[in-house]
Amino acid sequence: MIRTIEWRRGRVVMIDQRLLPEREVYRVYDDYRAVVRAIRDMVVRGAPAIGVAAAMGIALGARRLPARGFRVRFERMCQALLATRPTAVNLAWAVGRMRRVYREHPREAIVDLRARLEREALAIHDEDIAINRAIGRHGAPLLPDRGTILTYCNAGALATAGYGTALGVIRRARETGKQISVIACETRPFLQGSRLTAWELERDRIPCTLVTDNAVGHLMQQGAIDAVIVGTDRTAANGDVANKIGTYTLAALAARHRLPFYVAAPTSSIDLATARGADVPIEERSADEVTHVAGRRIAPRGVRALHPAFDVTPARLVTAIVTERGVARPPYRRALARLLGAEAPARRGRSSPS
Amino acid sequence: MIRTIEWRRGRVVMIDQRLLPEREVYRVYDDYRAVVRAIRDMVVRGAPAIGVAAAMGIALGARRLPARGFRVRFERMCQALLATRPTAVNLAWAVGRMRRVYREHPREAIVDLRARLEREALAIHDEDIAINRAIGRHGAPLLPDRGTILTYCNAGALATAGYGTALGVIRRARETGKQISVIACETRPFLQGSRLTAWELERDRIPCTLVTDNAVGHLMQQGAIDAVIVGTDRTAANGDVANKIGTYTLAALAARHRLPFYVAAPTSSIDLATARGADVPIEERSADEVTHVAGRRIAPRGVRALHPAFDVTPARLVTAIVTERGVARPPYRRALARLLGAEAPARRGRSSPS
Repeated sequence: MIRTIEWRRGRVVMIDQRLLPEREVYRVYDDYRAVVRAIRDMVVRGAPAIGVAAAMGIALGARRLPARGFRVRFERMCQALLATRPTAVNLAWAVGRMRRVYREHPREAIVDLRARLEREALAIHDEDIAINRAIGRHGAPLLPDRGTILTYCNAGALATAGYGTALGVIRRARETGKQISVIACETRPFLQGSRLTAWELERDRIPCTLVTDNAVGHLMQQGAIDAVIVGTDRTAANGDVANKIGTYTLAALAARHRLPFYVAAPTSSIDLATARGADVPIEERSADEVTHVAGRRIAPRGVRALHPAFDVTPARLVTAIVTERGVARPPYRRALARLLGAEAPARRGRSSPS
Repeated sequence: MIRTIEWRRGRVVMIDQRLLPEREVYRVYDDYRAVVRAIRDMVVRGAPAIGVAAAMGIALGARRLPARGFRVRFERMCQALLATRPTAVNLAWAVGRMRRVYREHPREAIVDLRARLEREALAIHDEDIAINRAIGRHGAPLLPDRGTILTYCNAGALATAGYGTALGVIRRARETGKQISVIACETRPFLQGSRLTAWELERDRIPCTLVTDNAVGHLMQQGAIDAVIVGTDRTAANGDVANKIGTYTLAALAARHRLPFYVAAPTSSIDLATARGADVPIEERSADEVTHVAGRRIAPRGVRALHPAFDVTPARLVTAIVTERGVARPPYRRALARLLGAEAPARRGRSSPS
């Protein structure tokens, strides 16, 4: 059991993902501003996990906010958490749920409101695991009975409250007896694949082989890959998928080699308010993350570097989108609207997961 | 002027490319076995440069071989150099030239033969620079008058005796007044792009931006790239191009985005004896080069990793192949045979460059 993020006696405890796999360090937070920094600095990452972190950060902050001026300060806190990272929509989704709790109980005694916010953050955490298990149940039948599945970045337990989205599908496939092994792309520059995915698959004894991101074309040429499954930071209404930089390249290669390309997406990451992928804000992170690895410089001083942290995979390259409510197939605009509307006819209603 | 490899008073001097860009260290060799290790360990890399290194290694070794048993020892030395790296055909080409010198003067006094071998090695070195300048002259007109050119790995001065193949085309384009800037892919795992290409372009004040290999799809989507040019370790008779792992992915993306994909190939790297890319031996290098960066471990202990060092780009994805004798266009089987046959009707004859 990997403990990505937990609420423990009024504090938030997170494994520091920057230090894995070499060191397993758990950091304890009792100030929401430290949670803001932790999200920005990638102590915690992965769309569902940063949603949970933001919700817990708000619950944490609310414990300290005085009753006087609560409304303004509460909103300032929400804004600070929202501003940490622009691409993953789960952040906005989770902050939205916390805001609603406050909005729906504006006159409640401060002590009761704090308890209510804490319960909501814990619910978001616990629901996330249930959602991932449901994604696993819907997605596992898509994978072959035996074969090699390529995954990218980390859409695993470490990217969520637990179990994982893309890795949840792989876990479920293994649990149901499928002979699945995994090829994990290292995922430059932050190396979530080599540092995190390889680490958590080793722990679960799921066979895993690490490759550099640029080896995928060659492996597909050699027939070494049977399917691709990745997570998403935001999927637009038309099925365009924003995910870790490099995902689009994998999808283009999969299409070229006629391999299925699956996206594991909790409905909290599907944003019907974003019409298409081009409308998703793509975070530009520091060039230092490209020019340095593990604190060591790997490029000449002064060289210019670009670091777009995400890219957009056009819907036409996506074979299916696996959510906790079922599998969406093209055309996605209709399929996603139906999935999100099934239990939530109003757009906002999508935020209550099954 | 970058001094990749030089012959200095009976010794071979090479810049240690493993230490760039942080340290500029020149290593001096007076034993061919040390040159064998230097090629295998990538002190020197790049198909044309390792051809030069092998030729100089043989000249070096011949200085020490006694007249008695020369033939057997000479051949053993050639075999040791040939065995260092399997993919680049320049190695076999250069060793072939050195062997021919010996074969054609079997009865010469040992001191004269040594001088002859030394002259041949120096000729291979000097011709390489002339070849690269000719590739530059043929290739530069293919590039737009202004734009951004993507390159991969290092096909520059450091991969050759000087000036470079792919970077030679870019250098020539700049010399003729084209407003060209470069995007260099870092090229995992050995990081030739960030460590070597960025370093040599900075030296020449050619504008260069570094990106992770997985960012290329996104950049092409954004219209940020106008053309791609790469080198090659071996091009087959049908125009299939073996080059650094990841090259095929770039070519597939370029085709998808309708961008020209050029290969700069000295005729010494074109192997008419290899019918197609699938026949090129692909070197598997140590997994440690994937799991460690700059001496630091970046993956869990015990994780399995694959490290194919090259891949094959099918000829149909290659817009043109630029050689020192002119530009080959599809269909390549005919175009390459014609280019290589023009000055060398017999197959073996291709080894004398213009």
